[in-house]
Amino acid sequence: MDKMKRAERMVAVMQILMSKPNRLIPLTILAERFGAAKSTISEDLLALKESLDSTGQGRLETVSGAAGGVRYIPEISQREAENFLQELAQQLSVKERILTGSFLYMTDLLYDPSILRPLGLIFAGAFQEKKPDVVVTIETKGIPLALVTAEALGIPMVIIRHGNKVTEGSAVSINYVSGSSKRIQSMSLGRRALESGKKVLLIDDFMKAGGTSLGMINLMQEFEVNVVGLGVLMESLTENEPKIVHHYLSLLQLMELDPVQGIAIVNPSPEFL
Amino acid sequence: MDKMKRAERMVAVMQILMSKPNRLIPLTILAERFGAAKSTISEDLLALKESLDSTGQGRLETVSGAAGGVRYIPEISQREAENFLQELAQQLSVKERILTGSFLYMTDLLYDPSILRPLGLIFAGAFQEKKPDVVVTIETKGIPLALVTAEALGIPMVIIRHGNKVTEGSAVSINYVSGSSKRIQSMSLGRRALESGKKVLLIDDFMKAGGTSLGMINLMQEFEVNVVGLGVLMESLTENEPKIVHHYLSLLQLMELDPVQGIAIVNPSPEFL
Repeated sequence: MDKMKRAERMVAVMQILMSKPNRLIPLTILAERFGAAKSTISEDLLALKESLDSTGQGRLETVSGAAGGVRYIPEISQREAENFLQELAQQLSVKERILTGSFLYMTDLLYDPSILRPLGLIFAGAFQEKKPDVVVTIETKGIPLALVTAEALGIPMVIIRHGNKVTEGSAVSINYVSGSSKRIQSMSLGRRALESGKKVLLIDDFMKAGGTSLGMINLMQEFEVNVVGLGVLMESLTENEPKIVHHYLSLLQLMELDPVQGIAIVNPSPEFL
Repeated sequence: MDKMKRAERMVAVMQILMSKPNRLIPLTILAERFGAAKSTISEDLLALKESLDSTGQGRLETVSGAAGGVRYIPEISQREAENFLQELAQQLSVKERILTGSFLYMTDLLYDPSILRPLGLIFAGAFQEKKPDVVVTIETKGIPLALVTAEALGIPMVIIRHGNKVTEGSAVSINYVSGSSKRIQSMSLGRRALESGKKVLLIDDFMKAGGTSLGMINLMQEFEVNVVGLGVLMESLTENEPKIVHHYLSLLQLMELDPVQGIAIVNPSPEFL
């Protein structure tokens, strides 16, 4: 009977921790909530950790001391990540997705929470060692991707706007050449959106030549922040031109896109094969 | 010993269900994963349900039959929602947030996953009875809010673009008058983004006169979908003009915004007091 109560409490503790991913929950809060001693909650957490080791879906991190507590860090296993990207690549490799101008239609997948969540976990897993303070993206299609990555890392997100329409106090704006349109465009970000010295992870949905990414990197220099990583969902390798940015992680690679023959080939990047 | 194994399995099952919110997981998958009989998993789920009743953070829904299984539905209790909105209103009621043009700076909060997650649960709780098939928003600031709402409801999201820059096949575009700028603007959405007959929940971050919301409603009529709800994070009540849309839910109300005196007053909407 006592054992059963323990199981119920463990489940309830687990649920509370998973509802607030990456947030440190003090042990005293849990102890009060369940009318249990802190030592009892500590034992529960040890047992929880063992359970979690078997699933590969995430882990508990305990911080000791007066300001201590426990937090749940969601994760995805390497094998699950590989399977997921393989499946996603197949879903994208269909001729019905070929759009005028040699683009691939992917917004239906890019805006679907059940697709986004694992993508966020994959990016978070790849960049967590760099300990970014904030995820930065540029509107519009990359926003959902950046948000799930920020959530998986437990950090906030910042959105760069196209043009110079920021109405939020003073803003910094720069010009850049988008690789796909070859036109000069501008992007801007409000001064108060980002503090100097922060470690920034850049996330975007698609990279062709890398012009937009380079623009984001240049804009970040204006804010005196430190870009610790750049992740894109898909890079295009259909043209033999070298990218103008280096040191980035793509999850998928567009290998071939032939509107005439109706051929679209997307593969997971070599890291995920 | 056997009891302990059960507790560990319950925790692991819980974690798997919470990692895929709103997704139906067949009992056979869980049974195979833990090398247990389906009847054993069923017993675990009954015990899990009881545990969850105590926290108010979410619940399990079981679907019987051949295509059956179990899904986790995240929730927020009414009291937690009220406390959260009360706190958010206080964070917004500071003079440092007053921007030129009588706007209130809120993007830092609107892009923060730890703020967004409860907001998504509150919207999901308010509209789940309408059984929406898709959440529709308009770029840019409403996107994160729409995404967390879609995730909490387990449905996809669609983003309307400003102007007519949709490059994704044929698109429908309409003109509308934004309440804040009083200028004629246009919004557009690709034909293939939304199927006719769907039930649509509209989500946006801010409503002044309601011009943008009305534009979205009109655009939805072009797609022959059924708008079953409209939710906005904040509505402005600073001017005595009536809104041009009715039947919407706002979570917060901007009561006063005086740049000269440096006064900003935000309250939770009466439903959450």
